[in-house]
Amino acid sequence: MQSGSLFIISAPSGTGKTTILKKIVAAMDNVAFSVSHTTRAPRPVEQDGIDYFFIDKDNFARMQQQGLFLEWAEVHGNLYGTSSYAIQEATEQGRDLLLDIDVQGARQVKNKLGHTGVFVFIAPPSLEELARRLVGRSTESEDVITTRLKNAREEMKSLNQYDYVIVNDTVTEAVEVLKSIIIAERSRKRRSLSGVPLKLIS
Amino acid sequence: MQSGSLFIISAPSGTGKTTILKKIVAAMDNVAFSVSHTTRAPRPVEQDGIDYFFIDKDNFARMQQQGLFLEWAEVHGNLYGTSSYAIQEATEQGRDLLLDIDVQGARQVKNKLGHTGVFVFIAPPSLEELARRLVGRSTESEDVITTRLKNAREEMKSLNQYDYVIVNDTVTEAVEVLKSIIIAERSRKRRSLSGVPLKLIS
Repeated sequence: MQSGSLFIISAPSGTGKTTILKKIVAAMDNVAFSVSHTTRAPRPVEQDGIDYFFIDKDNFARMQQQGLFLEWAEVHGNLYGTSSYAIQEATEQGRDLLLDIDVQGARQVKNKLGHTGVFVFIAPPSLEELARRLVGRSTESEDVITTRLKNAREEMKSLNQYDYVIVNDTVTEAVEVLKSIIIAERSRKRRSLSGVPLKLIS
Repeated sequence: MQSGSLFIISAPSGTGKTTILKKIVAAMDNVAFSVSHTTRAPRPVEQDGIDYFFIDKDNFARMQQQGLFLEWAEVHGNLYGTSSYAIQEATEQGRDLLLDIDVQGARQVKNKLGHTGVFVFIAPPSLEELARRLVGRSTESEDVITTRLKNAREEMKSLNQYDYVIVNDTVTEAVEVLKSIIIAERSRKRRSLSGVPLKLIS
């Protein structure tokens, strides 16, 4: 069986990443979200092993010490991490995994994985359009929007870390492009050799 | 405007390459066949500049001497060549080009272009299946089929030259995968930066 790939996907806030990724997982076979470990308490609807692996701080610290995380971060006092083993297990079963992560996290993953991971950046058509979208949601204060635009401008500087850049003009097109990237990567030689009958390459 | 890419596509005889490529050109915008130069006389239906650029032997020799061919070959006493300039002009206009070429020709292109070209190999599901398909056509003698299978086995050894390997289980799936590869390559960073608004990456 052919191994799956790990797709590391970043986008500035407001670019529509979550919508795109959910549509991909719903539309494609053998594509799933990477499941993170967290020390945060589960919310009522969340299931262990599906939404997150819920562990306590001691166990998280032990995993950190043993170098078992591909990347980790602290957010609002809670720890989140991606276990190398969980990724390996899922991809070896032929599943493609989507790791939804910010630019800093992606950099940690890149340092560990190099070209083994597929790095995808989803960009807004322009910062002006991103501003319009953020204002359009009208759930955020002006300060929050200003901060997000400032962050977006910073994050754009990291484009060079990524293998692919998808400009999200429309969600439908962006989904189509990401789907194509996943299908294409399944045929990339370094990945696909295990899927080619051995008698063809011996 | 974003530049197009050159897709160099090889497959053993009988793998279904021509069918797949014609469907791609019919289905996708901005994808065309690369037009070769040849010293062969045009057939009644063939148009200069569309099917081939028809030139005489002196002009072909002059282009060869000036190093203007990305690759060239002699087939049944006629010369065929791919002009670097024609490729450059078409891709700069944003067109993706399909160069249908054998393994030896692909190697010449690879030596000149390196990672600028996208190398795709279309493989049969197995040599047994390829044999069945060649026999199924029943237009060829047993000797011809034996030779083609021997060539196919040789060509398979060059898989490592290629970026992508598409296994042609069904034409529909193979077309889908090649289409995905073309769409994905349009978003690859080295190619797509020219398509990303400059204000996003400055």
